[in-house]
Amino acid sequence: MLEELKKRVYEANMLLPKYNLVTFTWGNVSEIDRKSGIFAIKPSGVDYSSLTPDDIVLVNLNGDIVEGHFNPSSDTATHIEIYKEFEQIGGIVHTHSSYATSWAQAGRPIPCYGTTHADYIYGQVPCLRCLNDNEIEEAYEKNTGLLIVDYFKQNNIDPVAVPAVLCKNHGPFTWGKGADEAVHNAVVLEEVAKMAYRTETINPQVLPAPAHLQDKHYFRKHGDNAYYGQKG
Amino acid sequence: MLEELKKRVYEANMLLPKYNLVTFTWGNVSEIDRKSGIFAIKPSGVDYSSLTPDDIVLVNLNGDIVEGHFNPSSDTATHIEIYKEFEQIGGIVHTHSSYATSWAQAGRPIPCYGTTHADYIYGQVPCLRCLNDNEIEEAYEKNTGLLIVDYFKQNNIDPVAVPAVLCKNHGPFTWGKGADEAVHNAVVLEEVAKMAYRTETINPQVLPAPAHLQDKHYFRKHGDNAYYGQKG
Amino acid sequence: MLEELKKRVYEANMLLPKYNLVTFTWGNVSEIDRKSGIFAIKPSGVDYSSLTPDDIVLVNLNGDIVEGHFNPSSDTATHIEIYKEFEQIGGIVHTHSSYATSWAQAGRPIPCYGTTHADYIYGQVPCLRCLNDNEIEEAYEKNTGLLIVDYFKQNNIDPVAVPAVLCKNHGPFTWGKGADEAVHNAVVLEEVAKMAYRTETINPQVLPAPAHLQDKHYFRKHGDNAYYGQKG
Amino acid sequence: MLEELKKRVYEANMLLPKYNLVTFTWGNVSEIDRKSGIFAIKPSGVDYSSLTPDDIVLVNLNGDIVEGHFNPSSDTATHIEIYKEFEQIGGIVHTHSSYATSWAQAGRPIPCYGTTHADYIYGQVPCLRCLNDNEIEEAYEKNTGLLIVDYFKQNNIDPVAVPAVLCKNHGPFTWGKGADEAVHNAVVLEEVAKMAYRTETINPQVLPAPAHLQDKHYFRKHGDNAYYGQKG
Repeated sequence: MLEELKKRVYEANMLLPKYNLVTFTWGNVSEIDRKSGIFAIKPSGVDYSSLTPDDIVLVNLNGDIVEGHFNPSSDTATHIEIYKEFEQIGGIVHTHSSYATSWAQAGRPIPCYGTTHADYIYGQVPCLRCLNDNEIEEAYEKNTGLLIVDYFKQNNIDPVAVPAVLCKNHGPFTWGKGADEAVHNAVVLEEVAKMAYRTETINPQVLPAPAHLQDKHYFRKHGDNAYYGQKG
Repeated sequence: MLEELKKRVYEANMLLPKYNLVTFTWGNVSEIDRKSGIFAIKPSGVDYSSLTPDDIVLVNLNGDIVEGHFNPSSDTATHIEIYKEFEQIGGIVHTHSSYATSWAQAGRPIPCYGTTHADYIYGQVPCLRCLNDNEIEEAYEKNTGLLIVDYFKQNNIDPVAVPAVLCKNHGPFTWGKGADEAVHNAVVLEEVAKMAYRTETINPQVLPAPAHLQDKHYFRKHGDNAYYGQKG
Repeated sequence: MLEELKKRVYEANMLLPKYNLVTFTWGNVSEIDRKSGIFAIKPSGVDYSSLTPDDIVLVNLNGDIVEGHFNPSSDTATHIEIYKEFEQIGGIVHTHSSYATSWAQAGRPIPCYGTTHADYIYGQVPCLRCLNDNEIEEAYEKNTGLLIVDYFKQNNIDPVAVPAVLCKNHGPFTWGKGADEAVHNAVVLEEVAKMAYRTETINPQVLPAPAHLQDKHYFRKHGDNAYYGQKG
Repeated sequence: MLEELKKRVYEANMLLPKYNLVTFTWGNVSEIDRKSGIFAIKPSGVDYSSLTPDDIVLVNLNGDIVEGHFNPSSDTATHIEIYKEFEQIGGIVHTHSSYATSWAQAGRPIPCYGTTHADYIYGQVPCLRCLNDNEIEEAYEKNTGLLIVDYFKQNNIDPVAVPAVLCKNHGPFTWGKGADEAVHNAVVLEEVAKMAYRTETINPQVLPAPAHLQDKHYFRKHGDNAYYGQKG
């Protein structure tokens, strides 16, 4: 069942090594079929070099395996909480990509220093706190997902406008309309994280890009008045 | 029409991913036919992997599309202002290449720290201010072009001797006799930006290279007394 | 004799250039057959491009060459001391991989800044002192091995939980159940060293990841309650 | 004539792009035939992608072109002075490799921070001063060569033990027994320059490796008591 979905998720997972976002098995991509409430996700700990579409696991939003001969990603419970709360999005990516993870390890949000960032992400990329001892013991992966969605709700952040987040001492999650756009945003995040790192080294007193420049670039690509690219 | 021009511009655009200067569609190359006043430019938001010579758009200096089934690059109006004012040049490149963009985000000109820089660019690479709110609202891309040409005029800088500029919080533009030389200069700029970054890390008190060394290297390659390379 | 072992060690050595862990001949991998007490190791100074399984040298724990037409790695005496003392491990890797070696040259242990590190290495990666003049003159490579095993014993560190060490002003050694896992850990160490470097640049006041997060990730992958990956 | 020499020099030049030591035409390799006093060198400004063994230029120590349809490298006069004074060496390389050039631009010698450096280069890599105005005007390339050999003589440095030097605000020269070893040392220098850069970022107070460790590693590979690698 959902063969097309599994194929798309397989292909999106294979983009992670292509874009140098993963070492070994350190990453996973999922995409949800909103009608059935079932999502397809990478199996846990399986090498990209041996992965096939058939290995992709189907899971429902209760966390039950619907189809598959492997365990799903150990981060499955995080994906579930994000899908349940962010209803506008359809694909999620988790990686340990080097620069984004370094910002997460440093415990700092990534400021918007330029138009490359503003073209895709509206404002800074948030960096969430670590889970505490109890939250980790109780349900580590589920609580990671809850932390993300609660942060966006409490701070009134639109997950469509900010399709990326850093979990402190851990790494990034990105999302999008589908698996493919979520991977696209993971690539953007890594490039943006790399340039922000270099920007601060070149000028330790640097300030974020002016708000009106950020607005211009974001709305040049998004919303009703967008004019970048080709009309559909 | 202008099939040779379109082919050259297509090939110059394809050099951007080859030299690792672009991620996704973040860059564009154009070249102008000075007789007809028509230039060829990359279409907006089209992937390099699917680009063909036939997709290249022909535009005149009023911004009218002369030929093409796609919208031209969203930066077309910037190219126009540069072509109108810098009459000696024939090709323009815009990228978000990582190190050059990081200097632009840091809001700093790139000092000339050595002969690699001096061989191609006479003195520092300027970093222009951001456009203000009005300039952005009125005509963002056109005003970016005007900012560049006004800066060169007001500071009496020869665009042939300084074939590169940084737009603050945005990224670099480079140019040359044609599309091919403009791409060449984009590669040089990225290498020079990378080495300047590392130079300042190794020695935070470093000064620019002595003027007579800069002169020697620039004029070894340029002008009547050049002796680098082979005579034509 | 031990043809399978030699083949495995050959293949593990060939992973070093594949993962960009070596320049020229700067690295070696060995694996021991615990029954016979014989280990297979790369010959000294032989290029990876010309290496064959037949070139792998068999050595016993007294340092005698049991089979082979080449001298074994100049670091053979270090491998011997590690095999003699760390009885649970079966494979050893030495490289001059760039980031791990830079930490060794800086004389600093690598703090655990995140889950990428905690997934594989329990706590910091130790950085040992340099050998003194006498130790170097007497038996440089043997004393390097003794320094490693003595440090782990005196500090009560389990080499299975900490499969990596830095030798000051020199470079890293990693190990594992076999040659393949030792190479895997060498790749992990280089990634972890790279991200720790970047983490400290982004936030010079950064602290190690909280202990309970480190524990969670280590024990998610190791020990009786591990649930990452697929059960055997 | 000297067809074998030209072929070796061609192949050594082609190693520069292979090892990522050059962008465009920014580098050259030569090797001398000591019997005839003739050396083979890359032509000036010719792309590596179109270079053939037949393009290699033969030059004598007076700077006369003995054979060739191209101008020799613009750095030919530098090579001549080095060959005339360093009689033990037979091959020379000049590049603008990124990290070594960054140290040159920073105007700092590269300290010996570890055994990777000590295995090949005895002590620090010197960084020479810039030429002054007169020296540049009079004979830039020749005086660059004289500056190098004078520095080594005045400071009593053996060019066999220190096969690399940095010219301030310019870049590195390396040498060796032949063209191939000179390229080998250019690769070593770039790796050593990269790791020294990272070492100082990780520990700004770092000191050079202890002298006895440097000695041990250098003499493990060089001189009568060397035991690294295979005996000839």
